[in-house]
Amino acid sequence: MARSALPPLLYADTGTSSDQLYFSRVSVHDPFIAFGVGKKRITLQNALEFGRIKKARTFDAVLPLADWHARAAARWPRRKVGPAEIIAELARAYHIRGFRIPDDFPVALFLKLRALGVKLEPANGAMFPDREIKSDAEAAAIREGNRLSSVGFAAAEAVLRASRPKGRTLRYAGRPLTSEILRFAIESAILREGGTSLDTIVAGGDQACDPHNRGSGPLRPHDLIILDIFPRVTTTGYFGDMTRTFLRGRANDAQRKLVATVRAAQLAAIRMIRDGVDGKAVHTKVANTFIEAGYKTKHTKNGSVGYFHGTGHGLGLAVHEMPRMSPTVSMTLKKGAVVTVEPGLYYPGLGGCRIEDVVQVTDRAPKMLSKYPYEWELR
Amino acid sequence: MARSALPPLLYADTGTSSDQLYFSRVSVHDPFIAFGVGKKRITLQNALEFGRIKKARTFDAVLPLADWHARAAARWPRRKVGPAEIIAELARAYHIRGFRIPDDFPVALFLKLRALGVKLEPANGAMFPDREIKSDAEAAAIREGNRLSSVGFAAAEAVLRASRPKGRTLRYAGRPLTSEILRFAIESAILREGGTSLDTIVAGGDQACDPHNRGSGPLRPHDLIILDIFPRVTTTGYFGDMTRTFLRGRANDAQRKLVATVRAAQLAAIRMIRDGVDGKAVHTKVANTFIEAGYKTKHTKNGSVGYFHGTGHGLGLAVHEMPRMSPTVSMTLKKGAVVTVEPGLYYPGLGGCRIEDVVQVTDRAPKMLSKYPYEWELR
Repeated sequence: MARSALPPLLYADTGTSSDQLYFSRVSVHDPFIAFGVGKKRITLQNALEFGRIKKARTFDAVLPLADWHARAAARWPRRKVGPAEIIAELARAYHIRGFRIPDDFPVALFLKLRALGVKLEPANGAMFPDREIKSDAEAAAIREGNRLSSVGFAAAEAVLRASRPKGRTLRYAGRPLTSEILRFAIESAILREGGTSLDTIVAGGDQACDPHNRGSGPLRPHDLIILDIFPRVTTTGYFGDMTRTFLRGRANDAQRKLVATVRAAQLAAIRMIRDGVDGKAVHTKVANTFIEAGYKTKHTKNGSVGYFHGTGHGLGLAVHEMPRMSPTVSMTLKKGAVVTVEPGLYYPGLGGCRIEDVVQVTDRAPKMLSKYPYEWELR
Repeated sequence: MARSALPPLLYADTGTSSDQLYFSRVSVHDPFIAFGVGKKRITLQNALEFGRIKKARTFDAVLPLADWHARAAARWPRRKVGPAEIIAELARAYHIRGFRIPDDFPVALFLKLRALGVKLEPANGAMFPDREIKSDAEAAAIREGNRLSSVGFAAAEAVLRASRPKGRTLRYAGRPLTSEILRFAIESAILREGGTSLDTIVAGGDQACDPHNRGSGPLRPHDLIILDIFPRVTTTGYFGDMTRTFLRGRANDAQRKLVATVRAAQLAAIRMIRDGVDGKAVHTKVANTFIEAGYKTKHTKNGSVGYFHGTGHGLGLAVHEMPRMSPTVSMTLKKGAVVTVEPGLYYPGLGGCRIEDVVQVTDRAPKMLSKYPYEWELR
């Protein structure tokens, strides 16, 4: 399908829209207008943001919102002027016949613009297909995100090693070690190093069998503990995303087999990843590795056990972006794409294990963008 | 205008859509389907989220996404089934003739659903008008957010008091005190108390004259330093939002007059706020207070000086929500609404000052939901 030749139009804030952040390269809290004309990128900003955005020099032009509001108000004196009228006036002034918009463009604004005669074409897929292919600078920014994940693991590992099994609890600094204490150690270490880690997962025992349970309360000795850390680098907005599974105390054979199987599946996936491979095939390889090792996946009315999430996802200005390695869709891995590789197995009673690293696709073996040891049994 | 009787439909994640979080009351990272039927609230979740969301018990029913995907695939065997087909199948199964959708509903999904014959009506304003009126529990959650802001101020004030003016720098723990050091003290203290503070503003001198400049580099003695802290409470998702302006060293007369004027304007605004008052009138009062005190507002091509932002905004599951107290729109303050009150003045050379508290509208004097001293000159 031929790419639309229409220039892009965005109306969003950069906190909720990674497309807007990709286009704008400067963080703005409230929704704003940004669009392209030829190779130029233009934005409208109110008095509160104008000076800061101008100084950031990420746009070719920063226009004062109030001026264009006044122009639109002059054109439609009987209307309450909003973003739609202002965009319509911009389109007229810049001789733009229509815009390409992201699929998540707000519908109410879309309908108003259409009523004003502005042609709009949803991207019907990626708004900026280039986002999927990471430049060297972007790969470095993601690597920095993963360095922050590693800072978190190191902080957590230090706390786990300093804690002592006592009956059914781990004692740390005179009190029972909890998910909350460990999470604070991780998140404050990351904050100190220049990132923010939201929704960090620190889940032990059966809690970890719900892969998106953040974890709470006491952590137990001899239990598998999943740490999934996906921090955002403050300066660039790029994310890291890594997972390690630890155990403080002594693992049993079933736990050891579980962890070894997950790691073997991860290595098998990484070996397959290269330019042109189907992400679905990588996922199928992981799923088969688990079946061959005797790990069954079952779905019940209260949840699932075994392997019931995708093998990986693109990573960049969003934690989850294109491409995916999942059972449901075929998606070709392209050179330069950056994906997580995160197989996991979850069985209440035994516990959960997930190991996640990040790679960049090349013509040959993928480039590792994450680094932390795989030693997990902390005796 | 009569309220649409159509049941609500949402397709968003709870991180980017506060409407989705308001409706779902449980945090989910990826976009998902949630809708109403009569008084029941229903969601579809994939295997990865299903168990966790079911356990959270915030929905009347949690349906397995895979089952409904299969039903939609059986109905449209030649199509690639996505959210649109699944929603259309749900509408048929639940005999729903159409849905009310938020104004920021994703346009591509809207167009697909309409092509499938599903009637959709944008809310054309607030999706859940009740969000503007805060229950006692919500007011308490916002108060907790502001308590976290205060924790941040206390941490910052301790650092400022412990730092010593030496020529053009403030020395702290053997090095020059910077915005970054102060920001880390604030954000780590908030993290420890159960919240996350993103984009905390710690801006001194002329940096603070750009009200959304986060601040960077050395902080100077005898300079006004604006601290704007808007943390999110981890357990509830509600925000606090407070600002204080400090100065370490000795203020001059111009700085003292600036701070006193801003505080007087804030008190004048708070005195006006009650059920039925127009937010625009409150803003005008603040703007006039500044004019009467001799503070002029000017807009230049490189930015603005004086008073060039709104007096306040609604606060809740989003940092900026309804209602507004701004120069551009009339908006009635209703009993139960929660708004910030944050006048400020900004003059490069002299510096910036903003003081922000949070109140809940009542029939009489508003209820204060924030609390921290106004002592600002730390000698």
